[in-house]
Amino acid sequence: MTAVSDIYPAGQIVLREVGLRDGLQMVKTHPSTSDKKEWIRREYDAGVRCFELGSFLPAHRYPQFADILELIEFLKELPGTHGSALALNRKGGDAAVNSGVAEVTAVLSASEAHSKANINRTQDQAIGEIEFLVDLARSASHKPLVSVGIAMAFGCSISGDVKVDTVLSLAERCLNAGADVISLADTVGYAGPTDVATLCKEFQNAFPNRVFGIHLHDTRGLGLANAIAALQNGATIIDGAMAGLGGCPFAPNATGNIVFEDLVFLCQKEDIYTGIEIEQLLGVRDVVQKSMPQEALYGSIAKAGLPQPTELDANK
Amino acid sequence: MTAVSDIYPAGQIVLREVGLRDGLQMVKTHPSTSDKKEWIRREYDAGVRCFELGSFLPAHRYPQFADILELIEFLKELPGTHGSALALNRKGGDAAVNSGVAEVTAVLSASEAHSKANINRTQDQAIGEIEFLVDLARSASHKPLVSVGIAMAFGCSISGDVKVDTVLSLAERCLNAGADVISLADTVGYAGPTDVATLCKEFQNAFPNRVFGIHLHDTRGLGLANAIAALQNGATIIDGAMAGLGGCPFAPNATGNIVFEDLVFLCQKEDIYTGIEIEQLLGVRDVVQKSMPQEALYGSIAKAGLPQPTELDANK
Repeated sequence: MTAVSDIYPAGQIVLREVGLRDGLQMVKTHPSTSDKKEWIRREYDAGVRCFELGSFLPAHRYPQFADILELIEFLKELPGTHGSALALNRKGGDAAVNSGVAEVTAVLSASEAHSKANINRTQDQAIGEIEFLVDLARSASHKPLVSVGIAMAFGCSISGDVKVDTVLSLAERCLNAGADVISLADTVGYAGPTDVATLCKEFQNAFPNRVFGIHLHDTRGLGLANAIAALQNGATIIDGAMAGLGGCPFAPNATGNIVFEDLVFLCQKEDIYTGIEIEQLLGVRDVVQKSMPQEALYGSIAKAGLPQPTELDANK
Repeated sequence: MTAVSDIYPAGQIVLREVGLRDGLQMVKTHPSTSDKKEWIRREYDAGVRCFELGSFLPAHRYPQFADILELIEFLKELPGTHGSALALNRKGGDAAVNSGVAEVTAVLSASEAHSKANINRTQDQAIGEIEFLVDLARSASHKPLVSVGIAMAFGCSISGDVKVDTVLSLAERCLNAGADVISLADTVGYAGPTDVATLCKEFQNAFPNRVFGIHLHDTRGLGLANAIAALQNGATIIDGAMAGLGGCPFAPNATGNIVFEDLVFLCQKEDIYTGIEIEQLLGVRDVVQKSMPQEALYGSIAKAGLPQPTELDANK
């Protein structure tokens, strides 16, 4: 049985690459399974260990995730990795638990309106589903972690402001239902740094023994400003997607997740150990671009390169 | 005579639009004078009051700044505005002071190597020029403010790391020479949030009665993360350029200044009063685009729009 602290030790920053799941949610072309494996393999070589691999969703509607089982198997072959997969209903949860994936993620919306729009369920019903998923996970021999992403935790594009207390109360219900890890998501890029800092601090105050994650979109340009606020205020699991892939049906025209490569650079600048080598990571963009030539790739480090002074001796 | 505190009151955030100067440093096409006036006028209508208008440089080499005198006159007609212009040598300084512009800006590099590469002068010589400029300014009837931008204050693309003490010692020499305002520039996008926070705190400790500015480029994606670090640590004058215009000859391929519109959004999110109305500001991009159709415009708020929930009642 895996303990949460084996995967997410308290105080240790884990950068999670969600490109293969959230990044592919809305793309027009889909990478082949072998492209995805190359993507994972090369990120692994660059030092990435934590991957969101896909969703358990009907393959006829979401063909981009049809190969989720194969990716889960593939990741198991790479020592030291941790994979997660999304499950939005009982069928998906059952398949996810049976797949042997190390972590199964459910989604709960911070607003009732988005809950209905996104998963066609009330918040109460969604929490019921989380209880069901936890039971499934506990009864599986490999006992996967169950995580819950709280969508719209920083404001909702349907119903507006979301109160900190609302999020904390939902988080508490998830934890009482047996969830191992909570991730707070700025699904539509409504958060500013102080919003992120406040919710992180309050989460820590409320649940001092729980590691938690932050999932940010760079919709309005504040993604990395929010990421540093999260890192400075107790969040240890930070999501990003290669090349900033990933739109959101509730935020049309917007760019996607925060750029994973830029997030690694931010950590490097802040002396936060990630184990990831940026130059090597940047090479993975070639795989992404090759497999989805129509997709716009984002990223500042990819464009400007790492700081590389031309002289090392300032006195020259 | 204008006092520094009239323009930059202690503790009050001033966002300065540097698109017309730093933003035009490297563009391929140049807006006409009437386009620039429309740009200024429409930004003024949106609430912008502080503008860097251009450089006093030889018009045959920098034709984009040939109309600087006309813009200075134009800005004077708009009540409550404050204009600055760059001067890199005695001839420019003389012309700038004679123009009646409210603030003349000199540049000093934090590294000796960049000082020589950028203005073909040692740091000692550059400080001598600042003394000369201050004398000129003090003897003019309208007594313009003299500001100094310390380039490469967070690291240099030629000589690498720049120590905080080096920057503080240069700042002290500028202040002793009579400079009214210091702006610390991350010319090539080397800074991270902690670098910015540290230098801002140290600057405040060293010169507690001085307002100071931060000039950031978004070269490596950390521009707004650095801006919030500056705002949280005592900097009150923050530069940005419309649509993120402005490259840097020392940072090839890179994007430019932080996007002014996104900076305003950041302030709005952080409840920092700027007096600027974002929707109206976004309209100015049309002027920029029309006048420089070949230039890439950046900006997240322009792309995603302001957060606008579709329902205002969460219970619907």
